[in-house]
This record gives sequence, C-alpha cells and structure tokens, in this order.
Amino acid sequence: MQSYTYDEIQIGQEASVAKTISEYDVYTFTGLIGDFNPVHINTPHAEGTFFKERIAHGMLIASFVSTVLGMYLPGPGCVLISNAETFLAPVRFGDTITVTCKVVEKLDKNRVKLESRITNQRGEVVVTGESLVSIPKTKK
Amino acid sequence: MQSYTYDEIQIGQEASVAKTISEYDVYTFTGLIGDFNPVHINTPHAEGTFFKERIAHGMLIASFVSTVLGMYLPGPGCVLISNAETFLAPVRFGDTITVTCKVVEKLDKNRVKLESRITNQRGEVVVTGESLVSIPKTKK
Amino acid sequence: MQSYTYDEIQIGQEASVAKTISEYDVYTFTGLIGDFNPVHINTPHAEGTFFKERIAHGMLIASFVSTVLGMYLPGPGCVLISNAETFLAPVRFGDTITVTCKVVEKLDKNRVKLESRITNQRGEVVVTGESLVSIPKTKK
Amino acid sequence: MQSYTYDEIQIGQEASVAKTISEYDVYTFTGLIGDFNPVHINTPHAEGTFFKERIAHGMLIASFVSTVLGMYLPGPGCVLISNAETFLAPVRFGDTITVTCKVVEKLDKNRVKLESRITNQRGEVVVTGESLVSIPKTKK
Repeated sequence: MQSYTYDEIQIGQEASVAKTISEYDVYTFTGLIGDFNPVHINTPHAEGTFFKERIAHGMLIASFVSTVLGMYLPGPGCVLISNAETFLAPVRFGDTITVTCKVVEKLDKNRVKLESRITNQRGEVVVTGESLVSIPKTKK
Repeated sequence: MQSYTYDEIQIGQEASVAKTISEYDVYTFTGLIGDFNPVHINTPHAEGTFFKERIAHGMLIASFVSTVLGMYLPGPGCVLISNAETFLAPVRFGDTITVTCKVVEKLDKNRVKLESRITNQRGEVVVTGESLVSIPKTKK
Repeated sequence: MQSYTYDEIQIGQEASVAKTISEYDVYTFTGLIGDFNPVHINTPHAEGTFFKERIAHGMLIASFVSTVLGMYLPGPGCVLISNAETFLAPVRFGDTITVTCKVVEKLDKNRVKLESRITNQRGEVVVTGESLVSIPKTKK
Repeated sequence: MQSYTYDEIQIGQEASVAKTISEYDVYTFTGLIGDFNPVHINTPHAEGTFFKERIAHGMLIASFVSTVLGMYLPGPGCVLISNAETFLAPVRFGDTITVTCKVVEKLDKNRVKLESRITNQRGEVVVTGESLVSIPKTKK
C-alpha cells in the first residue's frame, strides 16, 4: 500500500490491480447486495439471454476501482467524491480483469480526477470510468 | 422479482431495497475486491480520520442500485449501460440504507434513465446517482 | 472432537483431517488476509509461472495443522506455542490434502511436540512441520 | 503491489499490513479449515478458559505474513520455502494486528530470510516468526 498527497501526485501516474473473477466472487457479491437477477446466478435463464451464460455484475467489476484508488493511487487518505462507469462488455466467470486508474487532472480544493479502464484477458475494454477524489494536500 | 418492458415502464415509477450494513458486509466486500484501505478495516487508523470509525466502501453502497434495477425496476432482462454516483456522506457499520431508483426518462433505442437516491436510517442522503439501462421493447 | 491430557497422551499417537481444496477455499482465504499475490487469483499470470496454474497459499494448507491439534490431538484445551512448516510442493485447486499430526516428544512443563505431514491425493508430501503445544496435566 | 528481485532486495527493508480482526474473520477461517476448537467459536466454553473470551486462531494471525511476503516484500514471484512462528499472546475479537516483515539475510540460491513481528493495537508483540523465500535473481 502507498499513499500520495495532492502535492506529490502527478498527471499521468497509473496503478492497477487484477483478479480472475470466479463463480465464488459473483455468488458472494450476489449475497451481499441481494441482487438475484437470474442472469448472474441462474444458468438455464442465462443460457436463454444474449450472453448465453451467467455473467458478473457490472457493479462488482466497477468496484475494483475502489481498490486501486484506496490502496495505491492516491492510496489511504483519499475520499471518493464521485464515480461514473460505462459498461461495454460482459465479464464471464473465469475472465481475468485488470483495472487501471490514471491521474488525468488536478483540480482545486485538493481534488484529483482519475480515469479508469478495465480490460479482460484478451485486452478487450469491458468498463471505462472516471473518479473524483479528495486527498490530503501534504503529508502530516 | 418483477420485470417491465420499455412499453410498460412509466416515468415516475419507483422501487427500493434496504439493508443494515454490518461488519460482515464490509469485511466480505473487502475480501472480494482486495481493498484493504485501512479506513474500512483498521479501527485505530479509522479513529484518527475525519470519520472517527470504520466506514463502508462507497462502491459497496452504490452497488445496491444494481439490486433495484436487476430485480424490480426494470427487473430481469435489463442491461446496465452506465452508472454514475456521488458520495455525500459515509455509511457506518450498523447504518441501514434504503436505495430507491426512479424512472426519469424514456430514451430512444429502448433505453431508460433512472435516478437513484440512497438514504440512511436518519433520512440523510448518502449517495445520489443516475443509471442508464436498455430493456426489451415488449414481452416475448 | 476429543481431548488428551499430558498424562494421557502417548508418543506415536496420530490424528488426521482431509479436504479437497477448492477455488472457494483459496478465494475466501485471499479475502481474509488480503493476499492478492497473482499466483493465487490470476489465471493468465499463474500460467506464466513455474506452477502453470493458480495454487493455494502455503499458509492456508499449513493452517489445517491447527484443526488436527485443536480438535483431535491433543484437542480442546491445548495452547499452540509455536509452529514451523516447510513447503515442498504446491497444492493446486482440486487437490485433496490429508494432514496428519503425530506426537513425537513429551517435554517438561506439560509441553508436547508433534510432527505434521501434509500429503496430496497422489501421496506426495506437500508440507512437513513441527508444532509445540501446552496441554492440561490431568482432567479437571 | 510491488516486487523485488534478489539483486534489488536489501537487508533491513521492511513492509507491513494491518487489519482489525473481527468475529467475521475468525468464523470464516473456522469454516475454511474446519477447526471448531471451542476456544474460537464457543463463548461459554471460552469464558471458562484462561483467555476468558473467544480468541483468534494463531494460524490465521500468522497467515498475514503471507500477505506481506506475497504482495510487498519481496512481492509477486517469491516462493515460500519455510515459515516458523512463535505465539506469545492471544488476539481477541476487535484487536488490530500489524504484521511487519524485515529482510535479515541474503543466502545462496536466491534465498532470502525475513523476520516477522506481529503486534496488537497496544504495541504488544503477539507473534514472532521467520520466513525463508526464494526470489528471482533479476528482472526478466
């Protein structure tokens, strides 16, 4: 884990995390938020959809942005002000996602804007997003 | 669970889900996404922050929008195109959130826009958001 | 579950537990301790390593010694003083481990030394270890 | 996450992780390894022991060493050869542990020895240990 202050952080900095998304992840997330939408947890139903199989919740995938922001860039001490994500392609059980956040703008009031980009193991972009965080100006 | 087609859904319709957010929820979510940001899982650290105690991940709270959209309004068959959320106040362990989504616009290509509003047990708004979904035009 | 006092326990006694280690086990353990080392949870990364696939955390496998000691030999009432383990081979998802502990020495101060040996379904030794426990001298 | 090669890593380097150990952690770990030793999951029993309340499994606490080694020092690519831990004091539900590993020796065959030290929120040392890892000699 590392942490950048507003004064230290630089436009263009990037950090990533990655995970193979398993049935375990999707089922556990299903239980946490209670989203029993059958496309996530009902195989016969999912086979009848455009996706042809169960897929992960978009919000589970988007949530990994929190991991990058909270642990690596800017890291502990940052406060998430807003987040926006666009879902471009499904994540299937067994897909490996890589979540990369990049600093794109330093704003007033110690706020920083980051863009996020989530790709799968084939390099396809599955989610893009943008986050606004507030971070400490300098080290205490 | 219920499901609305594009033709059936009406501007102004609302649906909600609610849950008391426990240490279990936050710790399980921490493990799923690997976000060991100490403000969520380290009591002495959290006591030294503005929040004074451990708080839930914003993305966990925002994820409940997926439950409303995927199960009740529009319900199974909808596909999440994009989501945006603004975090206004922290959710503490033991707080009870109510997540309400409301249809605000019917767009072309069978797309529907919903606004979401997440409140705690004191009626304070903790998250606001907006989602764009695509839904089937008519029942098969 | 059973329990032996210092007076009862005998050199040479053995007890075992076994489990097929699943993706569930590894992913849950990953979340508990926050160890997102990609060799455990990232398939493409793991395929590029010496192991060729995701493997379980050594410490998860070694932890089953606690189960044998705490439940069967010596059983409830024993206190773990120290533990040492050597990792000889990886445990892959779907492998079945058998953990056997054997009393090898009775020491002063009601302390007992046990050796542990963890094998997979092919009989290969994957972990060896040694534990020192303190147990009640006699039944109360 | 970061990663050091044998050539890069230096004696004296340290890395840490921390977590408040909750009932959730202990119960989940209990389920994974099946260690239903009542001192961990049976309140009336635990109240009758020296500890006066339920305590965490020593092996759960020791496992956090894997997180430091696998994610930060030396980081991904290291292989755990052996580990030894001595348990000095119990970890109670709600205690916050900090796990620190320190490089103490560079050995032949790209092996590195690290000492670990786990403290609680009062600064008391609860576990000490020693790990031997093998790491890549240089960056590929």
